[in-house]
Amino acid sequence: MSKVVVQNFSVSLDGFATGEGLSFEAPFGHAGMRLHEWMIATKYGSSIVGAETGSLGVDHAFAARHDVGVGAEIMGRGKFTPETGPWEGLGTDEEWRGWWGENPPFHTPVFVLTHHPRPSLEMEGDTVFHFVDASPEEAVALAREAAGDLDIRIGGGPTMVREFLAAGLVDLLHVVIVPIVLGRGVRLWDGLEGLEQGYAVEVVASPSGVVHLTFER
Amino acid sequence: MSKVVVQNFSVSLDGFATGEGLSFEAPFGHAGMRLHEWMIATKYGSSIVGAETGSLGVDHAFAARHDVGVGAEIMGRGKFTPETGPWEGLGTDEEWRGWWGENPPFHTPVFVLTHHPRPSLEMEGDTVFHFVDASPEEAVALAREAAGDLDIRIGGGPTMVREFLAAGLVDLLHVVIVPIVLGRGVRLWDGLEGLEQGYAVEVVASPSGVVHLTFER
Repeated sequence: MSKVVVQNFSVSLDGFATGEGLSFEAPFGHAGMRLHEWMIATKYGSSIVGAETGSLGVDHAFAARHDVGVGAEIMGRGKFTPETGPWEGLGTDEEWRGWWGENPPFHTPVFVLTHHPRPSLEMEGDTVFHFVDASPEEAVALAREAAGDLDIRIGGGPTMVREFLAAGLVDLLHVVIVPIVLGRGVRLWDGLEGLEQGYAVEVVASPSGVVHLTFER
Repeated sequence: MSKVVVQNFSVSLDGFATGEGLSFEAPFGHAGMRLHEWMIATKYGSSIVGAETGSLGVDHAFAARHDVGVGAEIMGRGKFTPETGPWEGLGTDEEWRGWWGENPPFHTPVFVLTHHPRPSLEMEGDTVFHFVDASPEEAVALAREAAGDLDIRIGGGPTMVREFLAAGLVDLLHVVIVPIVLGRGVRLWDGLEGLEQGYAVEVVASPSGVVHLTFER
């Protein structure tokens, strides 16, 4: 059966997966890009912005798994937009269509969890954003139907990843510990005491300074 | 000049360095020995309890640094005893002399920070416990005088380590991340936003599953 996976999920030493003060200008708040620099430095990361540079070592090996064998993503609305409440287009002239331009790096159905459903958005490159008001279990059922035999990515942010972990829905959790103390923001690990007991855990340190942590069951 | 060092300081993935519910029966609270199993499994760790077994790899290499080149330790009272307030001997028939028996594994002067000073305790093996009411800066000055050219160990628990870090007094911080989610207890990283900026940081993963993190300046 297909697996439910969390990939390339960066946290600081103090467990924050995003900073404080998220906005249109600062998608990760005061954290800036610091939690994601390791990925941007890989060939996979650079390819997202159309470049062809970057490392091909362990960071790339993990990062590039993003595109392999995944048939659907579930994301929190907070990953799609910093706007909350009813959809108002985020002060732009046009309807907000996500951070990623017309060809987002998903290339599958993406289920955006929101209490304010709206019509689906078809993008280039086979990404379709569906906006659904669903529990974690319901969302996985929807995504599984869309993904067929392929895996389902739990895309973040931290609050929804934590909910899916707490509900016991995640088969593979790949966390990247970035050696910075962020101080504030949204934590990943809260409320997950004893999480490791259901998983085999592997750790590998990258020469880049980050640590890849794999929880597998 | 001698350095101020933190050694073998274990934290969980969620940053807790000790559990909840510390007592005479449970020195680390609900964490039990889980944060310290990596060290007990080394030859260094087993030697503390008089055994001669254990691994000699990277975990041992770090752990055994404890005994090299350190001329004094500063510890919080909470490391010396779970008792708080005036000294009452912890319900035992005799005066409490620490967790470690008559020959503690320090073999140097040890400055125990407490608001309730009491006479010093001379133990076997050159360990002398001094009980002082001092600020972090004052304690380092005292320890430096006692240590001469040798280094000064900041021994824990987490609250006092955090205070010494926040005061900018620590030259070398060795943290060991244990891949468990402890959920509650006392956190190391709180209030230390941006700590990494003053240090060069190195990470290495051990085959045992822990990660050794070195902050050096």
